Amino acid sequence: MKLIDTTGLAAAAAQFAHERDWGPYHSPKNLSMALSVEVAELVEIFQWSTEDESRAVMETGEADHVRQELADIAIYLVQLCNAMKIDLNAAVEAKLAMNARKYPAPDRC
Amino acid sequence: MKLIDTTGLAAAAAQFAHERDWGPYHSPKNLSMALSVEVAELVEIFQWSTEDESRAVMETGEADHVRQELADIAIYLVQLCNAMKIDLNAAVEAKLAMNARKYPAPDRC
Amino acid sequence: MKLIDTTGLAAAAAQFAHERDWGPYHSPKNLSMALSVEVAELVEIFQWSTEDESRAVMETGEADHVRQELADIAIYLVQLCNAMKIDLNAAVEAKLAMNARKYPAPDRC
Amino acid sequence: MKLIDTTGLAAAAAQFAHERDWGPYHSPKNLSMALSVEVAELVEIFQWSTEDESRAVMETGEADHVRQELADIAIYLVQLCNAMKIDLNAAVEAKLAMNARKYPAPDRC
Repeated sequence: MKLIDTTGLAAAAAQFAHERDWGPYHSPKNLSMALSVEVAELVEIFQWSTEDESRAVMETGEADHVRQELADIAIYLVQLCNAMKIDLNAAVEAKLAMNARKYPAPDRC
Repeated sequence: MKLIDTTGLAAAAAQFAHERDWGPYHSPKNLSMALSVEVAELVEIFQWSTEDESRAVMETGEADHVRQELADIAIYLVQLCNAMKIDLNAAVEAKLAMNARKYPAPDRC
Repeated sequence: MKLIDTTGLAAAAAQFAHERDWGPYHSPKNLSMALSVEVAELVEIFQWSTEDESRAVMETGEADHVRQELADIAIYLVQLCNAMKIDLNAAVEAKLAMNARKYPAPDRC
Repeated sequence: MKLIDTTGLAAAAAQFAHERDWGPYHSPKNLSMALSVEVAELVEIFQWSTEDESRAVMETGEADHVRQELADIAIYLVQLCNAMKIDLNAAVEAKLAMNARKYPAPDRC
């Protein structure tokens, strides 16, 4: 099983952009900016909250807003992979292996 | 088929954090900050590039770096979904439907 | 002469926050998040523009918007200095000296 | 008295960039990206800290790091104003007046 499978979203996002002739705008440079803007919209939800308040956000009126921002982040992430022909699952597998070496679990120390 | 399936990564990221007792640090507030930092590391790669240079980044020595940053973004995105018990696939489906209404394709206008 | 003098803004921002009892919210952690959100609002203006279009932004209907975002960034920057009792002018002087060592001008090489 | 006077830094930053032929890279688009990267380096310092820990950061080994990041933010902010010929003091004055209308102080309600 893959760690992350974005096949469906990759196809849907590519078609969505194609139908609107957005290809010329979707350089990795521009998409990285757009992704950073979406992440900031998520950060904005939590900027004045305590950590405990942020843990309870899905029980508040912000729940839909949070879901929408996370979806936008996923969509731009997949568009970036499309634009650069990156296999996200392979990248995640390699990064998890790097992280396991960088931060060994205590019981392995 | 799901648009995006993060089942495997969600389980791996949860176990990774659990083994290191990182749970107390992984509030949505903190994870949103960490995600914004990872996205900035991607933005940094492109900040002085032209759009055309950014389109060719995977043919340069930055290719592995780009893959690692996209993987980190995917990992934090999934940890945020874990922390808030969000079904990312459902969120993406709903958002794509919203986007289709907000930006109708030209031939449907 | 100072490189940057924020005395007036520091006093105005402190009084503004004091009158609204915002002190408890203005931790450096929260202010750093708020600053990142304001910067993203500036980035959003330029995300789909070419570099040349961005150079001409002040001749467009976005001119006031740009001025407001830069002002917000300056205000949060000064609030961060207030919150941490940082002398911004001294910090800038030290950083410019570091930068001059790190990036020597070509004619000094 | 001005709220914020950046005359000295504006001149120093312009000369620094001129001596290194950085003008072609300093489009508002690129500078906004660079500013967002510097702010993320500040956010990174606080991402796993509690708010109280962030309030005490200047008593830790991160104090110089914080000063350097705030200086970098100030420098890019001023370079953005240079690139777009924006009077930052006038922009801040106008924004403070807007903020006073948007968030009236309690005793004026």
